Amino acid sequence: MKTAAICAIGDEILIGQIVDTNSSHIARALNGIGVRVGGISSIGDDRDTIIRHLGSLLESNDIVMVTGGLGPTKDDITKAALATLSGAKSYRRSEAQMEVIESILQRRGIEMLEVNRAQADVPDTANVIVNRLGTAPVMEFVFDESRYGHKALLYSLPGVPYEAVGALDDILEAIRAQFPSEEILHRTICTFGLAESVLANNIAGWEEALPDWLHLAYLPNSIYGVRLRLSCYGAGVSGRKEAMDVAVAKLYDILGNYIYGEGNDTLQSVIPRLLQSPPEATCQETIAVAESCTGGLVSNLITSVPGSSVYYKGSVTSYANEVKTNLLNVPEEILEKYGAVSRECAEAMARGVAILLDSDWSVATTGIAGPGGGSDLKPVGICWTAAAHRNPFTGETEVVSRLVKSASASREVNMQRFASNALNLLRLMMQQKLL
Amino acid sequence: MKTAAICAIGDEILIGQIVDTNSSHIARALNGIGVRVGGISSIGDDRDTIIRHLGSLLESNDIVMVTGGLGPTKDDITKAALATLSGAKSYRRSEAQMEVIESILQRRGIEMLEVNRAQADVPDTANVIVNRLGTAPVMEFVFDESRYGHKALLYSLPGVPYEAVGALDDILEAIRAQFPSEEILHRTICTFGLAESVLANNIAGWEEALPDWLHLAYLPNSIYGVRLRLSCYGAGVSGRKEAMDVAVAKLYDILGNYIYGEGNDTLQSVIPRLLQSPPEATCQETIAVAESCTGGLVSNLITSVPGSSVYYKGSVTSYANEVKTNLLNVPEEILEKYGAVSRECAEAMARGVAILLDSDWSVATTGIAGPGGGSDLKPVGICWTAAAHRNPFTGETEVVSRLVKSASASREVNMQRFASNALNLLRLMMQQKLL
Repeated sequence: MKTAAICAIGDEILIGQIVDTNSSHIARALNGIGVRVGGISSIGDDRDTIIRHLGSLLESNDIVMVTGGLGPTKDDITKAALATLSGAKSYRRSEAQMEVIESILQRRGIEMLEVNRAQADVPDTANVIVNRLGTAPVMEFVFDESRYGHKALLYSLPGVPYEAVGALDDILEAIRAQFPSEEILHRTICTFGLAESVLANNIAGWEEALPDWLHLAYLPNSIYGVRLRLSCYGAGVSGRKEAMDVAVAKLYDILGNYIYGEGNDTLQSVIPRLLQSPPEATCQETIAVAESCTGGLVSNLITSVPGSSVYYKGSVTSYANEVKTNLLNVPEEILEKYGAVSRECAEAMARGVAILLDSDWSVATTGIAGPGGGSDLKPVGICWTAAAHRNPFTGETEVVSRLVKSASASREVNMQRFASNALNLLRLMMQQKLL
Repeated sequence: MKTAAICAIGDEILIGQIVDTNSSHIARALNGIGVRVGGISSIGDDRDTIIRHLGSLLESNDIVMVTGGLGPTKDDITKAALATLSGAKSYRRSEAQMEVIESILQRRGIEMLEVNRAQADVPDTANVIVNRLGTAPVMEFVFDESRYGHKALLYSLPGVPYEAVGALDDILEAIRAQFPSEEILHRTICTFGLAESVLANNIAGWEEALPDWLHLAYLPNSIYGVRLRLSCYGAGVSGRKEAMDVAVAKLYDILGNYIYGEGNDTLQSVIPRLLQSPPEATCQETIAVAESCTGGLVSNLITSVPGSSVYYKGSVTSYANEVKTNLLNVPEEILEKYGAVSRECAEAMARGVAILLDSDWSVATTGIAGPGGGSDLKPVGICWTAAAHRNPFTGETEVVSRLVKSASASREVNMQRFASNALNLLRLMMQQKLL
């Protein structure tokens, strides 16, 4: 199995101005073609450090993926460091990348400057993989055995996340051309609603019975739930797929509808699968959202799914109480008697938005995200969620609701947890388990 | 100046299942107390690798910050590795942490299991810093000179992001107790609307004239704009604050209203400063949002600011065209003649939502986020944004609009760019530069 190291370059990472998200995407992509990532690192924009650190990574890895430090400004020095490391004698201009640069600047109405042109220049030791989404080309350096005792590849990617991610397919193809592919098996089960320790306890017996070659990892996330990843590596593992599938089937028996999906599924991405959507477009079921404390997040999550316009009508964020009463028809008596953060209000919001936007399904949130506000009775971190469904046969609307408690002091975390729980309530109602 | 290394532990990082956001928060916090972060790394859940890697970091750093691998499940082995590394002879139970564990489980209605109790156990070589937000305690290990030739500190933090961040203040205090603090000066200027290369060209003369001790870094982000960070380190740098302020003042002269804020400012966090909000609460200006392609993101960004309920009325996500006409009163002729993605529709949405939610200001988006859809005339990546203001003296509503072009093929990136540009248009209109 080939090994890889990933390195992000940039002072902005070391001072905490930006989060390195590229390495995670690259790691996932490499795993997908059977390459094991042994380590991820971030270093500063210092020429000597870059040369020394990348050299040491090349000594102990087959593949080194480098991101960042390729911008047009003066503090980006990765390219010069790579020229030295690879023993380049001069630079050459990539015409193919130059065409992309011209097209991008033209589309954005930006004048071409010498700094832009220079981005198409690469050390003569590099192969160019054209970056179609940005101005800095991807560079491939191939070191033969004489240098590090084994064949080693280095890829230099732009630091801009969508450019780095966008270039990955081409890079994977280049890697496969240099090395025969290795085998890997992964299967990830997504759960929601059980704390990690409770989940671990529930499946302890199942876990004990797993064969040695099947590795289980818990990937807990306090917002999106716990994912369980089963994996095995090495030659001939594809023959073990069936045994892995059997183990997963048992897991489904134990966890039931705590499981909402697999792999890259999210609470919002599974929604379209649960909707009635026969070939006749007129029967397509639709969704609407009413939000208070989540401020648009539930709606944003639903629309993050490509193609959601087919089943999504829209939402009302009723941040002010008058919007709840005027637009969503929440009765004023509910606000007076129970307050805006109440089961009654959440249910009225869910009913109200379904009528207002004429949708089959709806979901609503009303709570206290903090950090300020709240009271002893209704502290920061509580949220009422409600989901509603108009029965197509009786015309009646059924509503379910649940109280969510988040122990976090973070406004952002609370909003995300409230939104996840609202989507989960909708998902459960769609699975008709709650009715 | 003391140096630090940050290390995140967990197979889930190396396979790309999660993004390490903790290291960024920790780096920013350490910089804030004058500690230079020389490197960030991620390694897997392997006992020998953990011991070897952390030992090597302790050899070349004063402070090592470790996150992750402290969960209750079997694949979390950081604590055992730290016990070995520090030469612990046994474990002891932290009563203070035990109290937090009991309270958290009780609040969540989860039964106490032995795996939960064991989380309060720490190697006898560790000092405990209570984690008030989670079950795993923070551990401090102090190595004297005899071990690595210099005094070295290691802090082990939980991997759950809000727990790690929540423990930082206590850890910084512990570090300051162990080491005298060092001086550091940072100032970050936030710009929006100029590409990195254009910005660099505009300020090239200013950059050339900067004194040697003042370091400039470009922190470009294709969504939030380019931040310019000025910094200097070392003893006595506080005496240079005035010279740094003079340089920044010149930068304001050059860039004008391309600058929207400083430090951790965001396009949404500067809004309340620009609103009319005299002490008399009745004069508080308010905002409403109408969204199509951004699906709730603009609203979510505005409500991410604590206290936004004071000036934020709410939003309508009009994903379906019927919601645009029925709720926002966009004339059907506009949709027929110009289409939903048009200047006319964006302006009508901005006017419509201001009337519907009775707000002083409003902002609207309508575009094509992709990846599918679009046409030659209206390709994926275009969005019309509009902002409106009701003049309190004349009662008339003024509207401005702008076309946004994003060259990305990513739905998520496009939505984020559209939202940033909408907020920027609102910000510029509030600064009365566009009128």
